[in-house]
Amino acid sequence: MKIIIVGATGTLGKRVTEAFAKEHEVVRVGNTQGDIQIDITNETSIKAMFEQVGAFDALISTSGKGPFLPLNEMTGEAFKTGLLDKLLGQVNLVLIGQHYINKGGSFTLTSGILADYPFAAGSALSAANGGLNAFVMAAAAELTNNVRLNVVSPNVVEDSPAYFDSFPGETPVAMDRVVSAFKKSVLGIATGQVIRVY
Amino acid sequence: MKIIIVGATGTLGKRVTEAFAKEHEVVRVGNTQGDIQIDITNETSIKAMFEQVGAFDALISTSGKGPFLPLNEMTGEAFKTGLLDKLLGQVNLVLIGQHYINKGGSFTLTSGILADYPFAAGSALSAANGGLNAFVMAAAAELTNNVRLNVVSPNVVEDSPAYFDSFPGETPVAMDRVVSAFKKSVLGIATGQVIRVY
Repeated sequence: MKIIIVGATGTLGKRVTEAFAKEHEVVRVGNTQGDIQIDITNETSIKAMFEQVGAFDALISTSGKGPFLPLNEMTGEAFKTGLLDKLLGQVNLVLIGQHYINKGGSFTLTSGILADYPFAAGSALSAANGGLNAFVMAAAAELTNNVRLNVVSPNVVEDSPAYFDSFPGETPVAMDRVVSAFKKSVLGIATGQVIRVY
Repeated sequence: MKIIIVGATGTLGKRVTEAFAKEHEVVRVGNTQGDIQIDITNETSIKAMFEQVGAFDALISTSGKGPFLPLNEMTGEAFKTGLLDKLLGQVNLVLIGQHYINKGGSFTLTSGILADYPFAAGSALSAANGGLNAFVMAAAAELTNNVRLNVVSPNVVEDSPAYFDSFPGETPVAMDRVVSAFKKSVLGIATGQVIRVY
């Protein structure tokens, strides 16, 4: 299988890439590193990446950021950066990628636990993640040629100790469990699913 | 109670305004009509509205739009308009309004059934609505001074026959039921809730 991994050099992406590279052809896409560099907030940049890669069987995105800011300090501008990066950036990988992906291929995006539970300073990422989950549920039903679309929603992960304090009471999840969620999406038959790893 | 209704001249807003105006002081806010005109995609415009109104007890928003487009015709630019209008526009009413609202006041936004169920051409509005529901869940937990925040998520409504065909198999809900959902939010004690009217 030819698999594009966007965010391949990030905390999650690195592990996902290692796992899939054992048995598949992986194209590592990053913001500043990887085989190809793209800016997911820029549609032209996304299109250029698909043109360069050509036909592919799966796209995994572990990319996208947003602001952590207390609600009483949150501004519309800051909030918007999360919507345009983590939410719209990943949506655009699907909107543009649907015209390049092979029959029976799959898209797997990444949201997160903030979609389902409130954590201090997380309102913008809650919105971005909740938007992603709803988009996947809706868009999966419109994809043709047996193309599938799911989203992995991880809890805070073991490899991100800097975030542990932002998720009080949560048990950071092992990287292997998160990697398995991506395998479940790419190698399984499900579509339109939010695969939670909490 | 002094209640700001943003979208007061729309299909939903008209009914909500009629209902609350019987017993409360209502400030009608619209895009081109009403006591005050604002553009919810413009933060300066929102701020000017709050400055003009002064202290208030409740804000209801029934405003916000987004594109209906089949997924294979959906563009990032079209998708973005829904995120910036229905999602970020309503979020900004809360982000800015939190600095003006009276103690014990409430915000009530409007999302919709597309957050929970796929309908053809609805992916952008699914994302906007899903983002709103998650934002409300998260932001409500950060508001201070006993200020509450909920969102009403209606099905297609009886007063919008033009949309009936876009929601096959759904029974359009009576306007009274939707109005009651807003009463439940404004006059009740709940916060962080998605009040579904399906």
